[in-house]
Amino acid sequence: VRIAVVMSGGSGRRFWPVSRKARPKQLVPLVGGKCLLELTIERLLPVFAPDAIWIVTRAEQLEATRAAVARFGDLTLLVEPVGKNTAPCIAYAATVAQATLGDASLVVLPADHLIADEARFRDLVAGGLAFVEGRKSLLTLGITPDRPATGYGYIRRGKRAEDLGGSTFFKVTRFTEKPSLRAARRYLGSGAYLWNAGIFFFRASVMLEELARHLPQVAAEFKALGPHIGRSDEPERTAECYSRVESVSIDSGVLEKARRTWVLPADIGWDDLGSWTSFAKYMDKDAVGNSLRAQHVGVDSEGCVIYADGRFVATIGIKDLLVVATDDAILLVKREDAERVKELTDLMEEKGLDNLL
Amino acid sequence: VRIAVVMSGGSGRRFWPVSRKARPKQLVPLVGGKCLLELTIERLLPVFAPDAIWIVTRAEQLEATRAAVARFGDLTLLVEPVGKNTAPCIAYAATVAQATLGDASLVVLPADHLIADEARFRDLVAGGLAFVEGRKSLLTLGITPDRPATGYGYIRRGKRAEDLGGSTFFKVTRFTEKPSLRAARRYLGSGAYLWNAGIFFFRASVMLEELARHLPQVAAEFKALGPHIGRSDEPERTAECYSRVESVSIDSGVLEKARRTWVLPADIGWDDLGSWTSFAKYMDKDAVGNSLRAQHVGVDSEGCVIYADGRFVATIGIKDLLVVATDDAILLVKREDAERVKELTDLMEEKGLDNLL
Repeated sequence: VRIAVVMSGGSGRRFWPVSRKARPKQLVPLVGGKCLLELTIERLLPVFAPDAIWIVTRAEQLEATRAAVARFGDLTLLVEPVGKNTAPCIAYAATVAQATLGDASLVVLPADHLIADEARFRDLVAGGLAFVEGRKSLLTLGITPDRPATGYGYIRRGKRAEDLGGSTFFKVTRFTEKPSLRAARRYLGSGAYLWNAGIFFFRASVMLEELARHLPQVAAEFKALGPHIGRSDEPERTAECYSRVESVSIDSGVLEKARRTWVLPADIGWDDLGSWTSFAKYMDKDAVGNSLRAQHVGVDSEGCVIYADGRFVATIGIKDLLVVATDDAILLVKREDAERVKELTDLMEEKGLDNLL
Repeated sequence: VRIAVVMSGGSGRRFWPVSRKARPKQLVPLVGGKCLLELTIERLLPVFAPDAIWIVTRAEQLEATRAAVARFGDLTLLVEPVGKNTAPCIAYAATVAQATLGDASLVVLPADHLIADEARFRDLVAGGLAFVEGRKSLLTLGITPDRPATGYGYIRRGKRAEDLGGSTFFKVTRFTEKPSLRAARRYLGSGAYLWNAGIFFFRASVMLEELARHLPQVAAEFKALGPHIGRSDEPERTAECYSRVESVSIDSGVLEKARRTWVLPADIGWDDLGSWTSFAKYMDKDAVGNSLRAQHVGVDSEGCVIYADGRFVATIGIKDLLVVATDDAILLVKREDAERVKELTDLMEEKGLDNLL
C-alpha cells in the first residue's frame, strides 16, 4: 500500500499578511487561482487514488483546508490539535498507517512547494516508494541545486549508489545546516551536494523504529496512541498525545541521525516559495521591473513587488519596495528585507495583535 | 447685508486617494471627525446667520456637500455646473447677491483651510466687511508669514494705511507669484509681504464693476444671467453661462489688476493643508517621528506619514514614506515627493482611470 502524506499544517508566517493562522499560505489561491495545497494534490492524483492521499492539517486550519480540497472528493484529513513540527506529524501519519493498513510505504511532502516538472516528479515518487519497499531505509529527495543558496539545508551524497527502475539512489554521508555563501559555492561546485526539500520516503514500520531509536519520547507517545486509532476516544487521546509530545523536526530528530538514509537526486524545477521575494517570479511584470498582482500606476517607480489581489496601488518615486495589501492589513518592506517579515509577526504577537495574524 | 461665500468646489487632487471627485478633500472628515467645510461653517456661525452663509459647490459634489452640512439647517447652496476657477465662482456669487439682495458686502473664502485663532479671524472678517462697506475697494486678507514658504503667492503692502475698528488696512502695491526660496527669505525679512490666502472682501456691485473692467467676457456672461436668477429658467441659463465663460482665477484676473485693492494683515494660525505632508502635523505621533492615522506596527521605521483611517499598516525598514490607503486604493510616495501627487492623478486621467479619481 502506498500513501502520499501531505504536510499542510504550516503557518506560512513569511507570507503575512496574506497568510493567516486560519488560512495559511498553502490555502491561499496564489498561482493561477489555485492554492498550493490544491496544486500539490493535483500533482499526486495521477499516481495516487484520492483515498491514498492523506493531508495532515491543524485544528485551526481544518475548515479552510476542507474547503480548499473539497473538489477532490474523499481525501483523508489527519488533524493535529496543535503543530509540533515535522517529527510528530510524521510519527502520527506512520502510526495511523500502521494501525489502519498494517504497514505501508509513505512519501511525505510539504503542501506549499511548486514543482515545474511534474511528470519527472511523479516518476521519482514511484521510484522512491519502490526503493523503500525493498529495504529498511529512509529516503529523502535531494534537489539538484542551481545556485549557491544559503537558505536551505544541504545533503552530501556518498559514493555508494544503487540503481532501481531508472533512478540512481545514493547513500547520504551527511546533512548540513544552512551554509555560508562561501560554503554554498563550494557545495555547488562539488556536484555532491543536494538541497533538503523535506520530501521523505519510508515504510511506516521503519520510521517508527527509527523514531524509537532517536526520539524515544515522541515514539512512546504515538505508540500509546496507536491502539486508539479508529476508536471513539481517538480525538481525546490524540489531544493528550500532542499536549505532551516534544516539538522537533524530522530532519534534526531522525534523518540526520539515522544510519540508513539514502537520497534520490531530483532535477524537477522545485521552488519552496520561501518568501514574497521568491514569489515575485510568478507575478506579472511591467516594463520597468515591477512584479505585480495589483492594478498599478507608477511614476518613476521600479523593481517593486506589489501583491494587492486586484486592489489599485499608485507609487511615485518608489524603488524596490515590497507591498502586500489585504482587506485589513498592508505590509511595506524593502525588497531586500523580505526575510524580516517574521520579526514583524513576532512583534505583532508580543503586542497581542493575534487577530491580525 | 453681509454674506459669507464659502468656495467649496475644489477637487483637492493633492489629497488623492482620500479626496475624490464626488467627495473632495473639504468633504472628508479629516480633523476631529469633521470635514474642513464643516469647520469653515462652524468658524463663521458666531457672526453669520445660517441663511447668510452661501456655499458654492459643483454639481458632481452637490450630494456629498448637502450631506456634510445638513446639520446646519438652511444654508444656501449655489451650484456651479462645472468648475471654472475662482473668477466665475465669485462673479456668480456677486450676481446672485445683487439679484436677490440689491447690494451686499461679501467675504469669500475657501472651504478647505484651517485657522487656529478663530476669534481673531472673526474680528478680522467683521472689520474687513465694515471696511468695504464704506468704500469702492476690494480687500484681501494677507496672512502674516512665519517661514519663507515658496508655495504661496505674496502680497506686498504699501505705506498707505487706514485704521478702522482696531484693524489697520494697507494699500496693496503688488501681488507676486510663488517666489524662489531666496526671494521668499527676502520677503519674510522685509516685514512688508503677506501670503495671499484667497480670502477676499468686496461689495457685490464693486466686484461686478471690476469684473466688467478686467474680465469683460466673464462679466458679460453673468450680466446676462442676472435677470434669470430666481426664475424657472435659472438652471438652464446657468448651465449656458458656465459652458461659455472662461476659466480664470480672481487673483490674476481681477485682484492683481485692480487699482483699489487693500490688504488686511492677519496673524491667525492659518493653514491651507496644501498636501499630505502639511497635514501630517494634525496626525498622531509615535516615539520615532511617524505621523499616524492608522493602526501601525513598525520595525526600524521612522519619519513616515501613514493615513489609513484605522486600517492596519506594518512597515519594516521604511523611512520617510507617505502611505495613504482607502478601501479601493493605496498611494505610496516618498515624503519629499508628496507634491507630486498631481503628476500621478494626471497620469491616471490619461489612462482612463476616472473611476478612481
